[in-house]
Amino acid sequence: MSTATYTVSGMTCGHCVNSVKEEVGQVAGVSDVAVDLATGQVTVTSETPLDEAQVRAAVEEAGYELKA
Amino acid sequence: MSTATYTVSGMTCGHCVNSVKEEVGQVAGVSDVAVDLATGQVTVTSETPLDEAQVRAAVEEAGYELKA
Repeated sequence: MSTATYTVSGMTCGHCVNSVKEEVGQVAGVSDVAVDLATGQVTVTSETPLDEAQVRAAVEEAGYELKA
Repeated sequence: MSTATYTVSGMTCGHCVNSVKEEVGQVAGVSDVAVDLATGQVTVTSETPLDEAQVRAAVEEAGYELKA
C-alpha cells in the first residue's frame, strides 16, 4: 500500500470535496481518498505509488487545482 | 405566471447553486429557478404564487438557509 498527500485549491464546500473524491477515486489502483476541506489536503491510498500526473488530471477534471 | 426573489445564505460554489436549483425546482408549480451565487438571490418562477414555507423547506432540504 502507498499513501500520498496532495494539496488542492479551490474547494469551498462538501460538494467540492465529493467531486474531488469521485474523480481521484477513479484513478487506477486508488483504494481510498480522504479530503480535509479546511486545509485542502487530499490523502490518496493506492496499491502502488501513483503517477502524480494522473492525480493532477483527476483533480483538474473535477474542476480544481493541484498545488505544485 | 408569478416570480418571487428570495435570498439564500450558505451557497459557496456552483455545486451549491445546482443543489438549490434542483430542490426548489421540485416544488409543485415551479417552472424556473435562477440563482446568483454572488448575491445569494434565488428567483423562482411559478404558475401561481408560491407558499414561502415550501420554498424555505426546499432550500433547507438542499442544506442552505432562506433569509427572513
